Amino acid sequence: MSDYQPRPADIQFILSNVLGAPAYLQSLPAYAEVDAELMQQVLEESAKFVGEVVAPLQRIGDEVGAQHRQENGTGKVTMAPGFRDAYQSFWQSGWPALACATEDGGQGLPAVLEATLYEMLSAANHGWTMAPGLLHGAYECIKHHASDALKAQYLEKVATGEWLATMCLTEAHAGSDLGLARTRAVPQADGSYAISGTKIFISGGEHDLSDNIVHLVLARLPDAPPGPKGLSLFLVPKFYADGTRSAAHCDRIEEKMGLHGSPTCVMRFEEATGWIVGEIGKGLNAMFVMMNAARLHVALQGIGLLDAAWQKADAYSQERRQMRVPGRGKSAAEADFISEHPAMRRILDSQRAWVDCGRVLAYTTAVELDVIKHHADADRRAQAQRWCALVTPVIKAAFTHQAFYGGSECLQVFGGHGYVREWGIEQIVRDSRVAMIYEGTNEIQAIDLLVRKILADGGTGLDALLDELVSQLLLGLEASVAVERRFLQLRKVTDALVQANKENSTLAYWVADDYLRLVTVALLGWAGARVEAAAAETTDTQRWSQPQSALKRWVLPEFEMRLAIITGQLS
Amino acid sequence: MSDYQPRPADIQFILSNVLGAPAYLQSLPAYAEVDAELMQQVLEESAKFVGEVVAPLQRIGDEVGAQHRQENGTGKVTMAPGFRDAYQSFWQSGWPALACATEDGGQGLPAVLEATLYEMLSAANHGWTMAPGLLHGAYECIKHHASDALKAQYLEKVATGEWLATMCLTEAHAGSDLGLARTRAVPQADGSYAISGTKIFISGGEHDLSDNIVHLVLARLPDAPPGPKGLSLFLVPKFYADGTRSAAHCDRIEEKMGLHGSPTCVMRFEEATGWIVGEIGKGLNAMFVMMNAARLHVALQGIGLLDAAWQKADAYSQERRQMRVPGRGKSAAEADFISEHPAMRRILDSQRAWVDCGRVLAYTTAVELDVIKHHADADRRAQAQRWCALVTPVIKAAFTHQAFYGGSECLQVFGGHGYVREWGIEQIVRDSRVAMIYEGTNEIQAIDLLVRKILADGGTGLDALLDELVSQLLLGLEASVAVERRFLQLRKVTDALVQANKENSTLAYWVADDYLRLVTVALLGWAGARVEAAAAETTDTQRWSQPQSALKRWVLPEFEMRLAIITGQLS
Repeated sequence: MSDYQPRPADIQFILSNVLGAPAYLQSLPAYAEVDAELMQQVLEESAKFVGEVVAPLQRIGDEVGAQHRQENGTGKVTMAPGFRDAYQSFWQSGWPALACATEDGGQGLPAVLEATLYEMLSAANHGWTMAPGLLHGAYECIKHHASDALKAQYLEKVATGEWLATMCLTEAHAGSDLGLARTRAVPQADGSYAISGTKIFISGGEHDLSDNIVHLVLARLPDAPPGPKGLSLFLVPKFYADGTRSAAHCDRIEEKMGLHGSPTCVMRFEEATGWIVGEIGKGLNAMFVMMNAARLHVALQGIGLLDAAWQKADAYSQERRQMRVPGRGKSAAEADFISEHPAMRRILDSQRAWVDCGRVLAYTTAVELDVIKHHADADRRAQAQRWCALVTPVIKAAFTHQAFYGGSECLQVFGGHGYVREWGIEQIVRDSRVAMIYEGTNEIQAIDLLVRKILADGGTGLDALLDELVSQLLLGLEASVAVERRFLQLRKVTDALVQANKENSTLAYWVADDYLRLVTVALLGWAGARVEAAAAETTDTQRWSQPQSALKRWVLPEFEMRLAIITGQLS
Repeated sequence: MSDYQPRPADIQFILSNVLGAPAYLQSLPAYAEVDAELMQQVLEESAKFVGEVVAPLQRIGDEVGAQHRQENGTGKVTMAPGFRDAYQSFWQSGWPALACATEDGGQGLPAVLEATLYEMLSAANHGWTMAPGLLHGAYECIKHHASDALKAQYLEKVATGEWLATMCLTEAHAGSDLGLARTRAVPQADGSYAISGTKIFISGGEHDLSDNIVHLVLARLPDAPPGPKGLSLFLVPKFYADGTRSAAHCDRIEEKMGLHGSPTCVMRFEEATGWIVGEIGKGLNAMFVMMNAARLHVALQGIGLLDAAWQKADAYSQERRQMRVPGRGKSAAEADFISEHPAMRRILDSQRAWVDCGRVLAYTTAVELDVIKHHADADRRAQAQRWCALVTPVIKAAFTHQAFYGGSECLQVFGGHGYVREWGIEQIVRDSRVAMIYEGTNEIQAIDLLVRKILADGGTGLDALLDELVSQLLLGLEASVAVERRFLQLRKVTDALVQANKENSTLAYWVADDYLRLVTVALLGWAGARVEAAAAETTDTQRWSQPQSALKRWVLPEFEMRLAIITGQLS
């Protein structure tokens, strides 16, 4: 079956017609030079690179995968054939530097173009994309927290992607709870630290894609207090400036359900020399400043993977015939196209609606991240901060969930062929599953949303956000009325939860998943109403209205169920 | 991580305390000799065999899998190490013959004991279990449709499992729609047929488990009409009585998402000599007579796999600590058990409730299959027929769905470790996915339920079934009231669909999936109320009530969503 091919026109429609992002971004001084034409050009070029260079390597990444061996006393990882060449071409073409500052060797373009790039990359080849996926976070981390001396050596290399980077957080006993991490950092006379400990689940901890690897490692000074406040962040490269190899060893790579193209490494640091990034005891701060961007990135993986699954199922359903469509007279062929069967049609249209609405929410988040950085007005920045704080955990959880569960629905369109490797759809389902876990499990996203965000301010932030969203709706549209009704019910149940929390502080932990889904469906409905309003202005209305119709029929009624579950726990 | 271990006491509780199955079955003349003690003994022995012999081979089946090679002009398949020995031990111990008639070399025990055996086998090792999984269907098919000459050669071999069997139905262009099958059967002078054509997705089409393989093949005589009425059924063995090899060749095996322990074969019949089973043009009848039993079998796979996933997650959650449980004071350990976190607790309890309720529904179906065969009273047989017709598609779809989606929830309990092979949970998720597709996709089960069963008789069968179910409830129990309320709503919406169908015959195809889920949840609630009533009589009430509480809180509210979706399409 043919590889995934990006469809930049679909993305462009959401960016321009629905969100008016190009014009809005150009109104920010930082992007005064970036006009709509340039944005479209970058989008189309990136789609071309993804389709031509990265997409064809998806299957070999799964079948050959990354290979580990011991050599000269350290672990080496060989990536799947073609992966290194594609990566070298990727960074040399300037793609990792797209949204980095020009003074750091970047191109200074809006974050949303990086978002669309990574959505397409993940759709095309999730395994390969894991390697550069951490680059931008590492870049921001070094830029904002590292010393000038470290920056001089590492910032541009990481900005351009010439050197890849890792985040070494998890330890065998410390996953969701990083405060339990035990890796030690012993200060040395020259101001460096000797880092010792073993980190697990390190994506791209070792590979042959780039000539050096920059590890950002959470560790604890000998006299540090226990818990998260004792953690500091350190930079340990694979190779030092003089070419010597550091004592950061990849002892093995994990055998996984999928994502075989990406080596998930066990990294052992053996008194490896490193340097502190940021202040002592502020290690989590230095990493968590990147959290919204990283979670958005994972949400985009979900959207991309779902789009890839949808694209495969859509193509298959229009090529293959099976059984008669109900209520239709005999035709010349002995069976009708799979795409014409109601049970399959609803799957295809519903998943496409998830992608369309996901793009509205994720691209808006990317724009708001730029507003936080570049808008002159503090109120507008605060508003953007609110959007990112509330919407990011929702889209991380909702779209990684949908990539797996909706991807599985797309697999169903293939019947028995969906279970066979040949068609590639089962790889997407296997690959996507991990995104529900990493960068904070989806259950942690739900707790973040309800406990840390909503209950923490008594729901006032959500109220303000919903007010803004209503103001962006096209009044009079039937979908808009339904959106407002859902928002009203969401406000009511939020109030009830805020009240109940005063008596029972554990209740929120029980219903957090349902609350996140309630917000998900409310936001989907809002995004859908915006897509519909924009689609009404085009000649290609059916392309957009058919998925939205499925959304309303089959997806949005989940709102009633989640409401019933939560109110059932309140009484 | 340790292998799945059957827990016969849990199964025994459903069989005896909830269903009173042993006493009821003994009231049938066919099982007059089978008392409760014998049933329990067989259950415990089968659990022992499954746990000791079959469960330890699960991982090697996934990792080594079945291997195909060409040799002497035909395809050979070597099963994973240990598979043949386990199978030889299995049939020699008499397990395949459990529910076969004594005159055919069987043990004449109730079907429900075969059901519990296969549930445990599937939980322990889905791949290995695929091989004997088709035996009983083939036995019934040969018993009821083959000539005396064929029976003399094959019936006892298949009843005892000394020879394994296949069902060769699907062709590359004919999956859900078998009527499109093109394999030819040309009559020969000696009364045999020469079978030619290629079948795909043939589980166990070739292997080294048994000394012979009996293929049941759907094919078409040269003058047969097109469509399903032109199909006849033929028996083609791998080896004929004189020891010569037939022209049934395994050309390759599929690379699949999971279930690597079971070879999924492409079988090429090259003028292979075979004999007709049943009448010309009645091939589908001969196979479909087994359909309810086969679908029940797949539902049991789902229940077993979900139980295995639950068991792994439950064990892990009680061994590993992560983060603090909300609202609890500091304890000596630096973190609390995963099992104590609300988000994990609800997953574990909900999945266990699915298993408990699934057993109630599936074991009842197995008992009713015996009632159809053995009850003296025609009305009672008709009632059993109604149960099987209506409930079988529901449990096939619902529990294969739950094995995959609920299994994925169990994977989530492991965090990042769930994505890694080492823990075995991801294998269960991969293996289980196919059960949503084979033996009629879950979408076809939904159409079978709503269009072919409910609408066909205007809902009267369902009405009668619901009346019977209500009569089995313990009155006054709070859960019983909720069950009756759901049944009432189910009757109403069914009436509305029956009416709407008169105007719009395609509507049912759009909402069939939701209707099946609506019935699923209604039946789950009923099964749960029966479990609760039985649990109230025991000292181990919490074992049963804790999952049921989760069912009511987190699972049953789906009823409201499905109702909203269906009524939304009716207006």
